[in-house]
Amino acid sequence: MNNSVLVIGSIAYDEVETPFGKREKALGGSAVFFSIAASLFTKVKLVGVAGEDFSNSTILMLKEKGINTDGLEIAPGKTFRWGGKYHDDINFRDTLYTDLNVFADFKPSIPDHYKDTPYVFLGNIQPSLQMDVINQLNKPKFTALDTMNLWINTAKDELQEVIQKIDLLMINDSELRELSGELNLLKGLKYLHQQGLTYIVVKKGEHGAYLSYILNDKEHSELFYVPSFPVWEPKDPTGAGDSFAGGFMGYLASQDNINIKTIKNALIHGSIMGAFCVEDFSIDALTNIDKNKISHRYNILKNLVLV
Amino acid sequence: MNNSVLVIGSIAYDEVETPFGKREKALGGSAVFFSIAASLFTKVKLVGVAGEDFSNSTILMLKEKGINTDGLEIAPGKTFRWGGKYHDDINFRDTLYTDLNVFADFKPSIPDHYKDTPYVFLGNIQPSLQMDVINQLNKPKFTALDTMNLWINTAKDELQEVIQKIDLLMINDSELRELSGELNLLKGLKYLHQQGLTYIVVKKGEHGAYLSYILNDKEHSELFYVPSFPVWEPKDPTGAGDSFAGGFMGYLASQDNINIKTIKNALIHGSIMGAFCVEDFSIDALTNIDKNKISHRYNILKNLVLV
Repeated sequence: MNNSVLVIGSIAYDEVETPFGKREKALGGSAVFFSIAASLFTKVKLVGVAGEDFSNSTILMLKEKGINTDGLEIAPGKTFRWGGKYHDDINFRDTLYTDLNVFADFKPSIPDHYKDTPYVFLGNIQPSLQMDVINQLNKPKFTALDTMNLWINTAKDELQEVIQKIDLLMINDSELRELSGELNLLKGLKYLHQQGLTYIVVKKGEHGAYLSYILNDKEHSELFYVPSFPVWEPKDPTGAGDSFAGGFMGYLASQDNINIKTIKNALIHGSIMGAFCVEDFSIDALTNIDKNKISHRYNILKNLVLV
Repeated sequence: MNNSVLVIGSIAYDEVETPFGKREKALGGSAVFFSIAASLFTKVKLVGVAGEDFSNSTILMLKEKGINTDGLEIAPGKTFRWGGKYHDDINFRDTLYTDLNVFADFKPSIPDHYKDTPYVFLGNIQPSLQMDVINQLNKPKFTALDTMNLWINTAKDELQEVIQKIDLLMINDSELRELSGELNLLKGLKYLHQQGLTYIVVKKGEHGAYLSYILNDKEHSELFYVPSFPVWEPKDPTGAGDSFAGGFMGYLASQDNINIKTIKNALIHGSIMGAFCVEDFSIDALTNIDKNKISHRYNILKNLVLV
């Protein structure tokens, strides 16, 4: 059965400059990238806040992709704005500014008809707000959570608390180091499993991603690795991690059969969607793909590691 | 048939400090790490130069591992010395000093009974010396070459010339960028294939390794990827790349059947030997393994990417 996924996260207008061009007021934000990537696989319910300057045609576009926007609040003020400039080595960037605007006072309110959504992705917001969302939901089947260095440094206790309530933590390698206090990947994963986590996904950007998992109350964790999908010309990495998460959760919800094989395949689909995202600015590449392109890349990724 | 491999490279005493300890006058050098790693798979013929201070018991140890040292020249003066200090993040290091000593005037002379060796690894020395070695050999079956940023910057023409004579180039990701002038992996590989290379191995340290290859005069290259073997406590990364090369070439020579499947499996054995190397200082971990440990890790690496 094809089931739906709920996402809560940011909605933004980005000003982005990379060696391949420049965009002003480009649609962005974790919930947007996630939703569009996940919508390739299943129905999505979006929770977030935008300002009065948010485009109606964008809302229409999201709806056309099967993304329910009843949870999209339009608040007085301006939409969250982020400006960044990428280096010639596009793995590095400088944040030029972050104007939270309406996102600063965001108090997520989950519409009643969202509360039974079985797959939930808690995007990168304050851990206490992530906990608020969990408390509003009726026991989802599978909850994943993203976070960032800011919350690891300023709200670690709240973050540890919300981690107790979820199934999967999705972070990048530098966040794993900060959260665990361990420089070594395996030691960092061990530390997080000891906090009670069953599934951990560590995103390493162009260096692929790890899944670490504990099966059937076994003592030791197991590892699975998926390379990043090789891209000829990454134009704009903004949103790649959120698109990865969207591909992962969207695929998982579409299969609605939580087992380790499905979760591994979800990771592969995460890698595919992250790579699509970077091939153009903003959401442009994500809105230009179909099931055929995804399954083509699925085969390429599987063959990449086949002896 | 199990066939032998010839290696030419450096022989050194290293002074190494990492967060896990310190070693003075530790055995090192590309030819040493390569030889010991390759000796787990097949017989090795070593060409290199050491000084009068080089330990006789080390030569005995090498011989006991099936490494022929007739090509090991003992020259008047001191053995090559390198000193380095690794950061807390062990992926980064500072070179403290490089005393070439007898290595400065090294003119490799290949013993007659080495000249028919079918598998050859030209370790990282001046490209013109690598060419000298090729000219002394009787058409090996398979020749691989390593290089470094120094030669890319100071002897690019000679390097391009010697690249015309080999089957496989083994470099790391930063060297690929410098040699090709391309920041992007795929573009860098395309550039090198256009120079006539059939096989390219790109080592990315803890981020694994790529093999790019062109089969049967096809126009387009294909990619294969192997993750690095996850290590709990890397103590000293010195020699990991050379051990990778030794595992790769040793395995390939031991199979003596050059096809893409064997080459992919050779890459996996490279990854395994590179990981063993970093688990202790100098050659200590490499001298403490056997076939069983290798095949155990081979299965782990294969399962790491298995859905």
